[in-house]
Amino acid sequence: MTNKQFLLTSRPEREATAANFTLVELPIPALAEGQVLVRHHYLSLDPYMRGRMNDTKSYAPPQPLNQVMIGGTAGEVIDSRSPSFAAGDHVVGMGGWQQFSIVDANARGALRKVDATRIPMPAFLGVAGMPGVTAWYGLNKIIEAKAGQTIAVSAASGAVGSVVGQLAKAHGCRAIGFAGGPEKCGYVLNELGFDACVDYKRHGDPKSLYRALKEAAPEGIHGHFENVGGAVLDAVLSRMNDFGRVAVCGMISGYDGEPIPLRYPQLILTSRLLLQGFIVSEHMHVWPEALADLGARVAAGTLKYRETIADGIESAPEAFLGLLRGKNFGKQLVKLT
Amino acid sequence: MTNKQFLLTSRPEREATAANFTLVELPIPALAEGQVLVRHHYLSLDPYMRGRMNDTKSYAPPQPLNQVMIGGTAGEVIDSRSPSFAAGDHVVGMGGWQQFSIVDANARGALRKVDATRIPMPAFLGVAGMPGVTAWYGLNKIIEAKAGQTIAVSAASGAVGSVVGQLAKAHGCRAIGFAGGPEKCGYVLNELGFDACVDYKRHGDPKSLYRALKEAAPEGIHGHFENVGGAVLDAVLSRMNDFGRVAVCGMISGYDGEPIPLRYPQLILTSRLLLQGFIVSEHMHVWPEALADLGARVAAGTLKYRETIADGIESAPEAFLGLLRGKNFGKQLVKLT
Repeated sequence: MTNKQFLLTSRPEREATAANFTLVELPIPALAEGQVLVRHHYLSLDPYMRGRMNDTKSYAPPQPLNQVMIGGTAGEVIDSRSPSFAAGDHVVGMGGWQQFSIVDANARGALRKVDATRIPMPAFLGVAGMPGVTAWYGLNKIIEAKAGQTIAVSAASGAVGSVVGQLAKAHGCRAIGFAGGPEKCGYVLNELGFDACVDYKRHGDPKSLYRALKEAAPEGIHGHFENVGGAVLDAVLSRMNDFGRVAVCGMISGYDGEPIPLRYPQLILTSRLLLQGFIVSEHMHVWPEALADLGARVAAGTLKYRETIADGIESAPEAFLGLLRGKNFGKQLVKLT
Repeated sequence: MTNKQFLLTSRPEREATAANFTLVELPIPALAEGQVLVRHHYLSLDPYMRGRMNDTKSYAPPQPLNQVMIGGTAGEVIDSRSPSFAAGDHVVGMGGWQQFSIVDANARGALRKVDATRIPMPAFLGVAGMPGVTAWYGLNKIIEAKAGQTIAVSAASGAVGSVVGQLAKAHGCRAIGFAGGPEKCGYVLNELGFDACVDYKRHGDPKSLYRALKEAAPEGIHGHFENVGGAVLDAVLSRMNDFGRVAVCGMISGYDGEPIPLRYPQLILTSRLLLQGFIVSEHMHVWPEALADLGARVAAGTLKYRETIADGIESAPEAFLGLLRGKNFGKQLVKLT
């Protein structure tokens, strides 16, 4: 039995390309004591991976060259030499861009059993997984959203943004999304139930974007969840009410090495704003509570999500590059079985 | 008896000028029931006044045209029709740019009695007044400075910055200041006892400034108190450790209507920073505790300060413009008696 895997074999000069990755096929070694063999059903593709491709300082160490590209996976245990896992267990882990992984079952948090009868397996990589907890943490622990407030979120049709807005609505807030193009905006408004959605592609200049946001948020913005950075963040800060709170979760526009300045930092003072960056994996203590909340909403059908699923390990690089260009719709996954 | 006062009679086109102010001399009306007449001994000049001269949105309403310019004052009650105050009481208030003020003694917080035998009266407008409490709040409540950390502050020789660094030292922190020119840097190092001072005038380009800061803060920066904004803030954010905290107190460089962009906002995410703007007058609940702490340190001689004192109400506009250009050394006051 062999295992196809993608290694990162070069770093991007500027934009990431498929040539940065190399597909290899290797035999699967025998398990050692305490190890578990997992067959991956789904691989998660996420914007944070672009940051790991660089070797510049970031919140996490760079992805080492010539090793399997990092990534979240959902799958099934097919062989086990650990008493903690048995063949047939459904598990979520960080298996990487490959069909199989061998996991040390004793490494804390390396593998988590999930109940795939209640919630479909792909959801454990999205709305009931890391992206969902990211949304939950930023909204509840940084923004501290309260009923009656107006909450904005960029990349609103995405895996994280869609959860931010729906949880905000469930909290009794007004939810304002930013998304690119009429199809995504229609989804945000009509399927996810946001109160307004600003099409940032239609409003390419800052004044037009600001006016559209003013119309969407006539009473100003109390809390904002930033997934992107750049022009949207500038517009939002200009519309924030006094004592507004901003959870900074993503700055995807800057990943190609071009920092995008914040145009009006004086607003931090004049509106007495709080801005806070965070990485959800550094707040593991909230995961059980967050996953229970999110799982219950998914099972009840009140938390909606959409997936774009690429087929086969070979499709991973192109699907990832598409994600960086905003071609996906909802959570981007690769089906590996 | 007459009262000389400065009115704001026009708003700056770009830079503030002395022509924006007009000196008038009016008779002092008789007191009504509940009123107190205060002779000002000292007027405080502060950077926030520049913001009030504009009519753009800021954290406070603009200074109305053709009214007495706003300002903190320390003085003595010379006549009273209120049981709460008697002639001879030393008081601090917001009397404005004038020699006398008539104050409604019942207006909460309008006038505060001080003990001018223990601490010299000008100190109540500086280290034991609003600037001192500003430093105290930012350092203790936003930065949450802890022993062993490195704390940076811009405008380190100024009324606020000098207190930030000295309190940081008292907390067991390493204190790094920014100041302009060898004289101010020498004062920050040798008289105030900071561990290092970066002369931002000597390091005009960002790389040079960054290198100087790296030398001053070899283990990175845990907390920063921002009084200025611009290039210093960019350099500090680049040197901040993970989970660093920034109290945003002043953005003086942007007051002339030219916002100065923040160059690397992605650092908020990659270093998981917290940035928070604040105005100390919105946190009145901490004032008693802060003033008690600051007053005790001033009386004990462990909290040092310096003042630049202009003479006579007529000198107020030029002294204020000098403050905006950094010509003062320590707290800028005008002596009115």
